[in-house]
Amino acid sequence: MPEPAKHVIGVDYGTLSGRAVVVRAGDGEEVAWAETPYPHGVMDGTLAATGAALPSNWALQDPDDYVEVLRRAVPEAVAAAGIDPASVVGIATDFTACTVLPVHADGTPLSRDPAWRGHPHAWVKLWKHHAAQPHADRINALAAERGETWLGRYGGRISSEWEYAKALQLLEEDPAVYAAMDRWVEAADWIVWQLCGVELRNECTAGYKGIYQDGRYPSEEYLAALNPGFARFAAEKLSPAVAELGARAGGLTAQAAGWTGLPEGIAVAVGNVDAHVTAPAAGVTEPGRMVAIMGTSTCHVMLGSELAEVPGMCGVVRGGIVPGQWGYEAGQSGVGDIFAWYVEQGVPPAVGEEAAAAGVSVHEHLAALGDADPVGAHGLVALDWWSGNRSVLVDHELTGLLVGMTLATRPHEVYRALVEATAFGTRRIVDAFNDAGVPVTEFIAAGGLLRNGPLMRCYADVLRMPISVIDSDQGPALGSAIHAAVAAGVHPDVYAAARAMGRIRRDAYMPDAARASAYDDLYAVYLRLHDHFGVEERGLMRRLQEIRERGAASRDGA
Amino acid sequence: MPEPAKHVIGVDYGTLSGRAVVVRAGDGEEVAWAETPYPHGVMDGTLAATGAALPSNWALQDPDDYVEVLRRAVPEAVAAAGIDPASVVGIATDFTACTVLPVHADGTPLSRDPAWRGHPHAWVKLWKHHAAQPHADRINALAAERGETWLGRYGGRISSEWEYAKALQLLEEDPAVYAAMDRWVEAADWIVWQLCGVELRNECTAGYKGIYQDGRYPSEEYLAALNPGFARFAAEKLSPAVAELGARAGGLTAQAAGWTGLPEGIAVAVGNVDAHVTAPAAGVTEPGRMVAIMGTSTCHVMLGSELAEVPGMCGVVRGGIVPGQWGYEAGQSGVGDIFAWYVEQGVPPAVGEEAAAAGVSVHEHLAALGDADPVGAHGLVALDWWSGNRSVLVDHELTGLLVGMTLATRPHEVYRALVEATAFGTRRIVDAFNDAGVPVTEFIAAGGLLRNGPLMRCYADVLRMPISVIDSDQGPALGSAIHAAVAAGVHPDVYAAARAMGRIRRDAYMPDAARASAYDDLYAVYLRLHDHFGVEERGLMRRLQEIRERGAASRDGA
Repeated sequence: MPEPAKHVIGVDYGTLSGRAVVVRAGDGEEVAWAETPYPHGVMDGTLAATGAALPSNWALQDPDDYVEVLRRAVPEAVAAAGIDPASVVGIATDFTACTVLPVHADGTPLSRDPAWRGHPHAWVKLWKHHAAQPHADRINALAAERGETWLGRYGGRISSEWEYAKALQLLEEDPAVYAAMDRWVEAADWIVWQLCGVELRNECTAGYKGIYQDGRYPSEEYLAALNPGFARFAAEKLSPAVAELGARAGGLTAQAAGWTGLPEGIAVAVGNVDAHVTAPAAGVTEPGRMVAIMGTSTCHVMLGSELAEVPGMCGVVRGGIVPGQWGYEAGQSGVGDIFAWYVEQGVPPAVGEEAAAAGVSVHEHLAALGDADPVGAHGLVALDWWSGNRSVLVDHELTGLLVGMTLATRPHEVYRALVEATAFGTRRIVDAFNDAGVPVTEFIAAGGLLRNGPLMRCYADVLRMPISVIDSDQGPALGSAIHAAVAAGVHPDVYAAARAMGRIRRDAYMPDAARASAYDDLYAVYLRLHDHFGVEERGLMRRLQEIRERGAASRDGA
Repeated sequence: MPEPAKHVIGVDYGTLSGRAVVVRAGDGEEVAWAETPYPHGVMDGTLAATGAALPSNWALQDPDDYVEVLRRAVPEAVAAAGIDPASVVGIATDFTACTVLPVHADGTPLSRDPAWRGHPHAWVKLWKHHAAQPHADRINALAAERGETWLGRYGGRISSEWEYAKALQLLEEDPAVYAAMDRWVEAADWIVWQLCGVELRNECTAGYKGIYQDGRYPSEEYLAALNPGFARFAAEKLSPAVAELGARAGGLTAQAAGWTGLPEGIAVAVGNVDAHVTAPAAGVTEPGRMVAIMGTSTCHVMLGSELAEVPGMCGVVRGGIVPGQWGYEAGQSGVGDIFAWYVEQGVPPAVGEEAAAAGVSVHEHLAALGDADPVGAHGLVALDWWSGNRSVLVDHELTGLLVGMTLATRPHEVYRALVEATAFGTRRIVDAFNDAGVPVTEFIAAGGLLRNGPLMRCYADVLRMPISVIDSDQGPALGSAIHAAVAAGVHPDVYAAARAMGRIRRDAYMPDAARASAYDDLYAVYLRLHDHFGVEERGLMRRLQEIRERGAASRDGA
């Protein structure tokens, strides 16, 4: 009689919900999954606890929503799988990042503490909280001035999304919350802390978001020069305990076993990030193979055997994707979000009716209409900066731009121009890697936008590369499951686990030479706009944002 | 017993319809009006006569539609007025311009001739036919190279909309039609020809659109250098008989009396242009008072006692607005058209429902929502070039641009940014006049956009000037009626007639200092974009248009 199958649980914490997947540990077969939307979603208008209005560019979450996923999605997935919970040998999680919160020494979020829950700064700052750009600017200017060696590892700019900018904003806008917090912790690590009672930092977020390089955080002298009260930030609010991806963080506590219905004491892997964990899920553990996780935003991850500094990349971190290799990360902060914004702005009634008659979504209908036109026939180019630019400009005060409209411009043409803009943004990133001597040899797509065929074809043409796709609808959760299997000892390391459990469909979309040539012309226009508004006259969009903030302030004051 | 009131008829030929107004000749009282839509509207997709597809940027009309207005709108207006047709002493017309057609020596349009009606070039080219930009470019380059003295009177650039560019396109694309036409005539003069059987050119279109300056058209040497076949264009296809505005062109023919039901032999005034004729309709016959006729596009007209050359203006013509003074013209080729385009792109269902619930149009609802926000709170700026730029850049291959979008941008914010962009475009024109020593001392608005209160307030704030408004819903037709009264001898000249019959409401909208200051900041951004895309990197939008045309050509060939 064969040994009964072992199972692992991967939990993927996204922007709006958490998904738990039950995976067979031996071969990666996905048995069942369940999803729990966060009860409080994204708080970007008001703070749910008080009803108070939030300033523009804020985006908060409630950490108790993450626990709710453990209590609901995990047991639901196990039940749907019809497996014996006793067959589960490990659990691992991945998270959006940098999504970060202030906690007491025992891990209790300040937002759960009645003394602090009325303070917006006591809550989780979601990755897309973009209100700390002035702080990021100071971080970058000072690092450049002092010649901080770590700066080059982040493409020359630290993002306003990351731990330091968000913490500096917190210190300067609500020093009482800053003083009250014992730790400033990534949600990726906080959820592991909740599962096994152990505070650890994972190499991925510590490296990419925490400026942890060569075993050190930035120096006290540097931090003090930013703000004297910030001098001991890394020493006191972060943690020196940094663990390798796939390592066992601890055993599942009795409390967490109660939440999840899983056996107490099973392996809990160290935390991970949704994008990075997708590489092994696609079976990718070799250099040069870029994995793009394409959804509301897009994250690009790639391995390299050598260290190189790529201008405008998000970061390069030893062990940041898989142990033993340099992990490169780049990203686009708005992709599917932009298409959703466009459709929410309204479409002509006829477009909605045609979509309904064809039994497709408005997105699919607009994409199909656009796909039927020759490349460039719309005469439009957009800059895909509705949510700022993460790579290669690293500036969240940049904004969207659309040029080329005439009275004859139709909605499906605008929609297509927005899709193309995101493809051009990806090409700009791929070019930056190639130019820096880190050649991109293969492009593998994952994420929700895989379902959009015209978009995938557009990317293949714009990039002039075949596109392979992950062969799983639950890429990040499968990636987490792979790490759970390693932490539980089912596979010896992430390399072996990815070979056994990862899934990929090669060359799903092939470029067309004629369309690719036509896109080259549009891309040249995109690059001119990119360099003009992103470099040569960067101040213009920023000035508009200042005007916007002044206008909004006068409304709030009225 | 007092003498029975004398009446005059003003007929205003717009882009989509013609309107006839019955006016009391003594005091300008508008008694009744009627409107006839053109049966063939604007032909910009296919030629109605053959069903053949038209190239992009073409816009044609059928001249017989203009006669239809005489046959229907005029008798309908007279009937609605309940007056005795015998009390009508004169008729005058105004037209869009440059709207121009090829005719035989007797005035018969080539489009009515079975031998030619299958040729698109045989039809009326409407003012917004924008397919002759390459020809305009050559006209401008050669004039600059040769130092043609007339070029400065047109702000340094001749528009692709005008007689020469459109005729050169005709010559080079369909030389047989060019050879067959005896005259190339403005619709403004053609309709007068139909009314009284006399071929004359009016000083307004001859000057602004026909480069007739100081009693001369451009030289044969210049025209020959453009194209040897074009050498005799002015000498043979135009006409040297140029008449003053308000003059009597002739008496109503028996045929035209039959069409209109008016007495044979009554005075027919020389032709005029819808924008220019509106100045006396608002009672404006003095220098420095700018009249803006704001509708789908906007035309700015102003008198000056001295000759000056204003960069980028459309033209300055002696007697072009009222006899004896210099008439200045500038314009914006897309205004209300852009707002209509935006609404046709679709709005969220909730916006449509709110508008319906409030009993207002979607335009009014969006304008009201935008008006409630502080200036600049949307963080957006647009370039109002959806239909190119007439002043001060004079380039119809420029296109629209919108910058500053974030995921939080709402439709009413975009709508407001488009309204503001047209206000900024107007300010750029006013600035050009002020800078050239032709100060704008008053701003008087006319046209359909008068009904949009938030828009008018925005213009007052952006311009930092009080805005007076014409006190008539039928400004151009009233202006024509004024000219009919002069031609009929009821008043001695246009000055006296305008005083007696013109209507204005002074200072209807006053600027607000705080809003005006906030708009200054947005205008500064507009100017940077204007100068970048319009001057410094003018080639970028043009390259996009080339890509668009190549794409469209590959579709047509497929």
